[in-house]
Amino acid sequence: MSIPTTAIVARSPGPNGPNWALEQVETVSSCGADEVLVEMVATGVCHTDMVLSSVPDGVMGVHYPKVVGHEGAGYIRAINPSTKSVSIGDPVLLSFKSCGSCTQCHRRHPAHCDHFNLLNLTGKERSFLSRTTAVGQNEKESIWGSFFGQSSYAKLSIVHESCLVNVKDVLRDPADLATFAPMGCSFQTGVGAVRNVAAAGEDDVVLVMGLGGVGMGSVMAAKLNNCQTIIALDKQEQRLQLARSLGATHTINTTPSPAGGDDFDFAQAVKAICPDGPSVVIDTTGVPTLIEAGLATACARGKLVLIGATPLGYTLDLMGMEYISSGKSVIGCVEGDSVPKETIIEMIKWYYEGRFPIDRLNTYIPIKEYQKALGGLASGEIIKAVLLWDKESPADVSLTVSPETKRVKHGRGLPTSRI
Amino acid sequence: MSIPTTAIVARSPGPNGPNWALEQVETVSSCGADEVLVEMVATGVCHTDMVLSSVPDGVMGVHYPKVVGHEGAGYIRAINPSTKSVSIGDPVLLSFKSCGSCTQCHRRHPAHCDHFNLLNLTGKERSFLSRTTAVGQNEKESIWGSFFGQSSYAKLSIVHESCLVNVKDVLRDPADLATFAPMGCSFQTGVGAVRNVAAAGEDDVVLVMGLGGVGMGSVMAAKLNNCQTIIALDKQEQRLQLARSLGATHTINTTPSPAGGDDFDFAQAVKAICPDGPSVVIDTTGVPTLIEAGLATACARGKLVLIGATPLGYTLDLMGMEYISSGKSVIGCVEGDSVPKETIIEMIKWYYEGRFPIDRLNTYIPIKEYQKALGGLASGEIIKAVLLWDKESPADVSLTVSPETKRVKHGRGLPTSRI
Repeated sequence: MSIPTTAIVARSPGPNGPNWALEQVETVSSCGADEVLVEMVATGVCHTDMVLSSVPDGVMGVHYPKVVGHEGAGYIRAINPSTKSVSIGDPVLLSFKSCGSCTQCHRRHPAHCDHFNLLNLTGKERSFLSRTTAVGQNEKESIWGSFFGQSSYAKLSIVHESCLVNVKDVLRDPADLATFAPMGCSFQTGVGAVRNVAAAGEDDVVLVMGLGGVGMGSVMAAKLNNCQTIIALDKQEQRLQLARSLGATHTINTTPSPAGGDDFDFAQAVKAICPDGPSVVIDTTGVPTLIEAGLATACARGKLVLIGATPLGYTLDLMGMEYISSGKSVIGCVEGDSVPKETIIEMIKWYYEGRFPIDRLNTYIPIKEYQKALGGLASGEIIKAVLLWDKESPADVSLTVSPETKRVKHGRGLPTSRI
Repeated sequence: MSIPTTAIVARSPGPNGPNWALEQVETVSSCGADEVLVEMVATGVCHTDMVLSSVPDGVMGVHYPKVVGHEGAGYIRAINPSTKSVSIGDPVLLSFKSCGSCTQCHRRHPAHCDHFNLLNLTGKERSFLSRTTAVGQNEKESIWGSFFGQSSYAKLSIVHESCLVNVKDVLRDPADLATFAPMGCSFQTGVGAVRNVAAAGEDDVVLVMGLGGVGMGSVMAAKLNNCQTIIALDKQEQRLQLARSLGATHTINTTPSPAGGDDFDFAQAVKAICPDGPSVVIDTTGVPTLIEAGLATACARGKLVLIGATPLGYTLDLMGMEYISSGKSVIGCVEGDSVPKETIIEMIKWYYEGRFPIDRLNTYIPIKEYQKALGGLASGEIIKAVLLWDKESPADVSLTVSPETKRVKHGRGLPTSRI
């Protein structure tokens, strides 16, 4: 019923960010018919992991201690007799969880599942038990899990079947699995924002604000969609240069040059490139001043796609008549409104065609140096951190999901660490 | 250079609405190469005429005295040698004016022309001269005109060519011209909101708030688009019943029944019909409480299309994270983002097919009783008032737009008054 493994546990929110600890834990099976056991080879680090490990206990349905992580990549190590989409040993990428039965799920918009927040942000109690912290004599400490249905900051985790994207038919090299880990959230979000939500095309001038994994995904998607002008905006010159090599036709650095001395003038910088203003603005920053400037600068009928988490309590005010006559749209965006099983397979194909070079965006970090990955995200030095789990096989995987549960098989090519 | 005619003049905004006067005026030609003379047979009365005759002088570029009216229907009485789209005697419907040269015009979105407000709301000075009010010894009083490029509250008006929709090839009976007058604004706005802006389809649950000409147009368009559920919301039972006969599958009366005693509960009323909430909300009211309730009640990924003029200074506040995760859109809408030359021809075809029965929505009122039309709109008794101009030919139409200007021809079948 439980398997020893290792996990990064978010113990509590702290004044300087979450308090993380790499711990020995036990993965607990709840014997769900739609659950499988996945052994991670890599997990992407996404800003949402930080955000949802920084809010106080109880807020937004969040509880501590817990295991987050929602860009997992690994192999199926145990299934149920009812499991249909994967077999033991299949390589999988993990994405968000959805209920499969609400209207939005039926209509192929699982990112707007009625139960998204509960299934993904809250997760489940007693998904893991602590092996290092004794709470009482007869009871092990309960750790929340099933974050995004996967809690892939654990090496061995029980994953909901709706999270699985089986990539055995498209994966050319096992080592690529780690490369593809961030497709489950960041990259599909950036891609979907451009293709599904904004439906940007050849006539569009796309402004991408913030060049993390999501923003870079949007830049690449805008190029894939042949958008005529692609403007990348960030505060770091290095990221801007990288964005240019990925398809951005113009860049805007929001950090005023030391020589200039003046404050950054958003409208002036954008209008110098496109006097009418962009027709699509993708915000991945959540920074109110950028969001508001982006909306103001957009051209008539321009679309502002909101992705980045805004500060708690923030409201965006639309000026009644001015907004109506502008014909603009403000659109909320979760996971790029993607169907992961399709978008991820598509991104992998683009990758192999050389049109989606995410290997240039990833920084691979061994799990023991996880603090570097989680800290690097905040400082902005790393665009996309991918944690690599140790290659050693887990000690004793004896999951008993049901009497018929097949025995775990080991040894299918784990990737070489790259750092 | 000027032609005697009759016009309803908005003399000034008053505490109880605009101060109107039916006056003898002179229509002044500015000799523009893209201008024609139109003799009106009918003019629809739209709420925008009231709104823009109620703001103080100088606000929103509005000046007094002026002639408004922007749903004209009539016949071409004089053209320029350069005029290509119409010939003398052609029946025309009049819509808004656009510049034809900005990006939005080039991309077939003339309702979002860069110069829309200046061209349509402000208009031009000295478009008419007063024949009844003497200002000075040598100067006649100047009256603003070219409202929406047409100022069709005048019997003879100089109209910009971009406003013209030539209907000679589709008009089966000259009497229908008056019926079609409101297509130039109200009906194309309601239709375009559903078809162009929301792109509502079979899966959509459409909530239409406010059942004037725009709202009724949206109800009919939702039916034309085979939307599965069409909810009409208004405070008048008579309108609700009419909407039902036009395609609404459900109705909501916002006026609490005298028996009930309780306040109207918007969310409860809507959720009783569609538990997930509507996927498209069309607001034609501009009433903040309805707009906010409509947005709150919309389903995940729901679209709120804003059409109705909101109070001056009103802002709609979007709750940052809650809005983002909802996947909803708020979209500003002008004229249904229509291309009048196409949408109006399409609506006429639907009318003759019996699928767009706007004759049931129009109330025809002789020009001498114009106060009834303008007052009726405010009281809500009339859904769509259409002013009918007198049949007598104008006294002496001797427009000299240019030396080559052709002489006005008279007598092509003016419609029979219907009231």
